Amino acid sequence: METMKRVGIALSIIIFVLVLLLSSTAAQGGKIRGRRRLPCKQMVFYFHDILYNGKNAKNATSAIVGAPAWGNRTAMAGQSNFGDLIIFDDPITMDNNLHSTPVGRAQGFYFYDRKDVYTAWMGFSFVFNSTQHKGSINFAGANPVLNKTRDISVIGGTGDFFMARGLATLMTDAFEDDVYFRLRTHVKLYECW
Amino acid sequence: METMKRVGIALSIIIFVLVLLLSSTAAQGGKIRGRRRLPCKQMVFYFHDILYNGKNAKNATSAIVGAPAWGNRTAMAGQSNFGDLIIFDDPITMDNNLHSTPVGRAQGFYFYDRKDVYTAWMGFSFVFNSTQHKGSINFAGANPVLNKTRDISVIGGTGDFFMARGLATLMTDAFEDDVYFRLRTHVKLYECW
Amino acid sequence: METMKRVGIALSIIIFVLVLLLSSTAAQGGKIRGRRRLPCKQMVFYFHDILYNGKNAKNATSAIVGAPAWGNRTAMAGQSNFGDLIIFDDPITMDNNLHSTPVGRAQGFYFYDRKDVYTAWMGFSFVFNSTQHKGSINFAGANPVLNKTRDISVIGGTGDFFMARGLATLMTDAFEDDVYFRLRTHVKLYECW
Repeated sequence: METMKRVGIALSIIIFVLVLLLSSTAAQGGKIRGRRRLPCKQMVFYFHDILYNGKNAKNATSAIVGAPAWGNRTAMAGQSNFGDLIIFDDPITMDNNLHSTPVGRAQGFYFYDRKDVYTAWMGFSFVFNSTQHKGSINFAGANPVLNKTRDISVIGGTGDFFMARGLATLMTDAFEDDVYFRLRTHVKLYECW
Repeated sequence: METMKRVGIALSIIIFVLVLLLSSTAAQGGKIRGRRRLPCKQMVFYFHDILYNGKNAKNATSAIVGAPAWGNRTAMAGQSNFGDLIIFDDPITMDNNLHSTPVGRAQGFYFYDRKDVYTAWMGFSFVFNSTQHKGSINFAGANPVLNKTRDISVIGGTGDFFMARGLATLMTDAFEDDVYFRLRTHVKLYECW
Repeated sequence: METMKRVGIALSIIIFVLVLLLSSTAAQGGKIRGRRRLPCKQMVFYFHDILYNGKNAKNATSAIVGAPAWGNRTAMAGQSNFGDLIIFDDPITMDNNLHSTPVGRAQGFYFYDRKDVYTAWMGFSFVFNSTQHKGSINFAGANPVLNKTRDISVIGGTGDFFMARGLATLMTDAFEDDVYFRLRTHVKLYECW
């Protein structure tokens, strides 16, 4: 009888655990992953943008390619740069030194989209092809550049970053006139395959 | 013996449930989530776009910044606006009244990409910073504007909408010449963290 | 006593399996899906881009709508086309014949973003409305066009491709001057709903 009781207790525990498991599985229809907000991968990079201003063709890594009716393509348009669209191919470094050996390229576009305050929207990729990282991470989202930090979405990845999702916390690490800025990019992936 | 039988039945049930669970887990390699298509979060917003036409600088919330060779930046290009690229910062309201207090900003770009029919492609964010919502929702996809409703993808989110995925059903709620339109946006998230 | 032993063994097995299940569930907080990298859906399409060059208005499916200060909108800008922004509405075919019946439209934009090497960045959708496929697949990412193959992200989908995620392997299948190219697109979805 003693054994019977033990078997009973064991069964009860098993059934309890099963119910827990089942309910968590069922919940996945609505809220797919409840879970701890811990990144499965984190990295910090800097990228450096030197905007073409008509005189710096040799060093420039980006250029204005679209502007509003009142703007041109060698200077920002005024009104918080509203309507300026920039394409870039910026070096990525591990530290905040423009002259460090690049570990990849940040390639994409951004545009300023507000008249009364500096704020941008970006779509770009980090492209890596080194012994350390191969593949790309794709980003998109609003970048309210005057906020100390702001988050944009990691919307996908390839190679080492196959199917990645997460976000990146951007911080303006340096800003010189309208020509140079450096963004600290803290990449946090929450889906790693 | 009676007890033995009951233990046997209980075990059978447990094993059956385990097999079910295991098979559903195994299936996740191919089809990750089979599941009911029920949103874990739904919201309806309106956003209002007033396009700059050379005369309405004060009220305009968007501007043409790219156009084809035959176009300009104060009027649509003809041929279903093919090639016109617009950047916007539009107020978001809870109802369809342009003058309601905005609850956020819709910021991004759209362009018309077909010569024989009005159809657009959009990349934008809803940016919230109120007591109700803090954070952003990022969207991308085709917007065939003449369809009564059309879906675009929610590709990510930050803040309250951390890691969101889903879609948004767009409906043109009003359209006046080439200057004003209002989009009803039914956001449906299917991945909520 | 024999029966007791058998119950004991059965319980041990069950507990072992439960522990396995639990640990796999627990692991989902960090690495959400460990899993085999097998697509749940695969498709191959071709799309055809004919760029407007000032003379081919009738056949052109795309047009330059943004260019750097030194460029124009009827010819590539030089320096690996850096800064040229193109909007397109290209026919999608099942084989590599431009004149095959289109099964959908590839609609979006690309721009060249590097001065010393041809490389592009793209955001676009495959839009289907046939008996075979209804809905859209949304793509974004870097496209280093000189690589034999390169991957971009599938960032979402609608209709038949509701909530899709995955990647697409691009291959330049034909290229004629700056006017025509054909991209073989191998779509591989790893998240199917």
